[in-house]
Amino acid sequence: MASSNSSPAVTIDTINPKVKTCEYAVRGEIVILAQKLQEELQAKPGSHPFDEIIYCNIGNPQSLGQQPITFFREVGLSLRCATIQAILDRSETQALFSTDSIERAWQILDQIPGGATGAYSHSQGIKGLRDTIAAGIEARDGFPADPNDIFLTDGASPAVHSNDDFTYKIRERWNPLSHSSVPFILCFNCSPWWHSCLRKQLEDAKAKGVTVRALVVINPGNPTGQVLAEENQRDIVNFCKQEGLVLLADEVANREAFSNVQWVLYRCTRKMFMFQRRNLTLSRKVSRSMGYGEEDISLVSFQSVSKGYHGECGKRGGYMEVTGFTSDIREQIYKMASVNLCSNISGQILASLVMSPPKVGDESYESYCAERDGILSSLARRAKTLEDALNSLEGITCNKAEGAMYLFPRVRLPEKAIKAAEAAKCAPDAFYCRRLLNATGIVVVPGSGFGQVPGTWHFRCTILPQEDKIPAIVSRLTDFHKRFMDEYRD
Amino acid sequence: MASSNSSPAVTIDTINPKVKTCEYAVRGEIVILAQKLQEELQAKPGSHPFDEIIYCNIGNPQSLGQQPITFFREVGLSLRCATIQAILDRSETQALFSTDSIERAWQILDQIPGGATGAYSHSQGIKGLRDTIAAGIEARDGFPADPNDIFLTDGASPAVHSNDDFTYKIRERWNPLSHSSVPFILCFNCSPWWHSCLRKQLEDAKAKGVTVRALVVINPGNPTGQVLAEENQRDIVNFCKQEGLVLLADEVANREAFSNVQWVLYRCTRKMFMFQRRNLTLSRKVSRSMGYGEEDISLVSFQSVSKGYHGECGKRGGYMEVTGFTSDIREQIYKMASVNLCSNISGQILASLVMSPPKVGDESYESYCAERDGILSSLARRAKTLEDALNSLEGITCNKAEGAMYLFPRVRLPEKAIKAAEAAKCAPDAFYCRRLLNATGIVVVPGSGFGQVPGTWHFRCTILPQEDKIPAIVSRLTDFHKRFMDEYRD
Repeated sequence: MASSNSSPAVTIDTINPKVKTCEYAVRGEIVILAQKLQEELQAKPGSHPFDEIIYCNIGNPQSLGQQPITFFREVGLSLRCATIQAILDRSETQALFSTDSIERAWQILDQIPGGATGAYSHSQGIKGLRDTIAAGIEARDGFPADPNDIFLTDGASPAVHSNDDFTYKIRERWNPLSHSSVPFILCFNCSPWWHSCLRKQLEDAKAKGVTVRALVVINPGNPTGQVLAEENQRDIVNFCKQEGLVLLADEVANREAFSNVQWVLYRCTRKMFMFQRRNLTLSRKVSRSMGYGEEDISLVSFQSVSKGYHGECGKRGGYMEVTGFTSDIREQIYKMASVNLCSNISGQILASLVMSPPKVGDESYESYCAERDGILSSLARRAKTLEDALNSLEGITCNKAEGAMYLFPRVRLPEKAIKAAEAAKCAPDAFYCRRLLNATGIVVVPGSGFGQVPGTWHFRCTILPQEDKIPAIVSRLTDFHKRFMDEYRD
Repeated sequence: MASSNSSPAVTIDTINPKVKTCEYAVRGEIVILAQKLQEELQAKPGSHPFDEIIYCNIGNPQSLGQQPITFFREVGLSLRCATIQAILDRSETQALFSTDSIERAWQILDQIPGGATGAYSHSQGIKGLRDTIAAGIEARDGFPADPNDIFLTDGASPAVHSNDDFTYKIRERWNPLSHSSVPFILCFNCSPWWHSCLRKQLEDAKAKGVTVRALVVINPGNPTGQVLAEENQRDIVNFCKQEGLVLLADEVANREAFSNVQWVLYRCTRKMFMFQRRNLTLSRKVSRSMGYGEEDISLVSFQSVSKGYHGECGKRGGYMEVTGFTSDIREQIYKMASVNLCSNISGQILASLVMSPPKVGDESYESYCAERDGILSSLARRAKTLEDALNSLEGITCNKAEGAMYLFPRVRLPEKAIKAAEAAKCAPDAFYCRRLLNATGIVVVPGSGFGQVPGTWHFRCTILPQEDKIPAIVSRLTDFHKRFMDEYRD
């Protein structure tokens, strides 16, 4: 810590207060504790009543054993072979990869100016890749997309934060770092309630002199995992249009992100479980199909390669499509993208691949479909098993996971547990989650980290551990919960 | 543009004023014009008096034909082969790569939890890679480094901007987006002058009620290309210690970034040109060698894989080493890193590689050295040719490029040219650069985009075009300048 003739350079009292009050529960206190327990387990096996930490706190499928989609990796590998001493031209290399992945690698290399994969690209990303993505959006929605509207990004998180500068901070008021000016409450898919809730929050903000400039929609819901009905999405679009709000549509958790179909969990009987392919309609398409164009609504649509069946989190790839802003504002957005130079090229390439996967007739098509559908059907089975297990526990009700990779069970905690949490100076659901971690090694995120209806308690749990781990998770969770309730039952 | 019952969601008048006033000349107006000219040349060859655009505006060597260092690419490729259907185990694959690159790939794969290259990592980056980097820093400086102080980042730019939240914005005053509260002036390597200049700026800021919290040092200088003498660095460290300022040390442009040596241009005679290997001392080492530890100075050191001899700009890899902050501030820094989840894994791996290149005895060692030295000696020749050419022109004086990849010639513009610029409503150096681009296709950055001593005019020009292009650049630049002076000479 710095001390000198004058006062220290930075102290917790002089730091930007918005930084201090920001909470990021997904990698917050519980995860820091989990990392500590993991180190203890490594240093001293047997030091805890579990032998491994199971991270259900974050949508990070490959960290839990999900295998990458082969085609995407083969193209990446072929492309690297093409850029290094012409390895790709050798017959032994060609034997290793599918024909269509090699072809795709050459196509992409042609799109990169000078074939220089190690160079900064255009600030918005490589033009040829944006062309591919725009074509993919058009094929998905049935409405044209302009490659000049697309900004390739290092995943969706930095993109969402970059919008702080343009929208949230326009009046330097509604800053997501603080979560203070306009509170948000998780809305389930129940149209009349959330619509009035939205309007009430806007009115409350206006009454306090806060100028609200944007509305964020996360669909499928995070942490709720639910999918907005198209009717509700139309309401939201109209609400934004009427109130002059920018619509920031975070639709990255889409099970089939970047594609126009979604696998929806569909229950037939208590015993049987099926899933169905259903359209998941994105805000962009909803808005366009209502006849609204650039003049009617300012819409930023975020996508990421981290979510969806492929779950390529480590690549940090994604894009935002920016429509309905005046040219002077677009220039400002371009300028701010330029300040960070460009997103990583490998992530840019993957973003173009997930928007243009193998087609019928391509050599990789069948294996690609098999891998994708294998992941999706496994996710559906895992979601159902966990959901049923949670619903069987005293005081827990768990919504159906319709999309995304999250469950968000509500836990009715006894008064005695709430008092114990107060004594421990933490939120009751954080208290529950910490106890769960210490007893079982299972890491989940307290609902209080997301905002929830006051007086209710939840936690967010991903469905991502591999299937062979699920029975142990169910059994540990069930044992823990019974013991917890026995200890605190009123 | 959105119109609705209420006013548009975002207009240029309601946007965050700091965004509006931010200037980023490196990809600013001149570059946008260059892109337009390039499109016109493609659409209609012969439509301009040059046949290609030569980008000397940005340090992006691979976009201009520089080849990547084979070892770094081979490790990356081997690693990918290792993660995909065990391709790396096949003998035909092993025949393609050097033994040490394959070994390194396996080592790195072992460092990645579960070998999952497609997963989000720890918010600071993969621990094993941070261990390698810390060892590399220690080997470089002779002072221990802690892997827990290292935050891997998507290049240096996002890292520098993330520090807005911690230091610049602590009082929400000295925000680099605005450049308004405390102006900065480019300081050449002339100790008495810049030291008094620094102190004067600090006093001026205090007089205005501005609390200055940090000092940024860019060494080698950008745009000036000069290297600070160690004596000057010690002055800076003492200045920060005395005044309680955080020292933000951007030392990415180091010719041999991530290593402890630098190739310094060293002129023997007017005709002969040599370069020498000389230690480039980083602020961190200077501070530690003065006996200052964590308690004495808060220091953030930035590095990037984009600069240095390798110039891997497209990877977006880098790190910041954060020392001398209290644990509560470190927690805040960790939290803000977590909000963006992690930097891209491929960039993380490359950052570890450049901190641990092949060693004596490794199969790749000789070819690695030959590639590195080939790039460096070519850069030295190019810098010298361009510097001499610039110095031969009427009214132009060009400093010696001691490090980095930039020249920053001063242009004494005739009054008539300054008047013409005023009439065209732009800065005189921007006027010159635009005319240069329109006449020759050469893209440089006006000095007014960086800040310069009032009343002087410069431009920044990289030395990165490949050697076979240099004669044409010199000839076009010379012709243009003569004609420009003939037109405007007083």
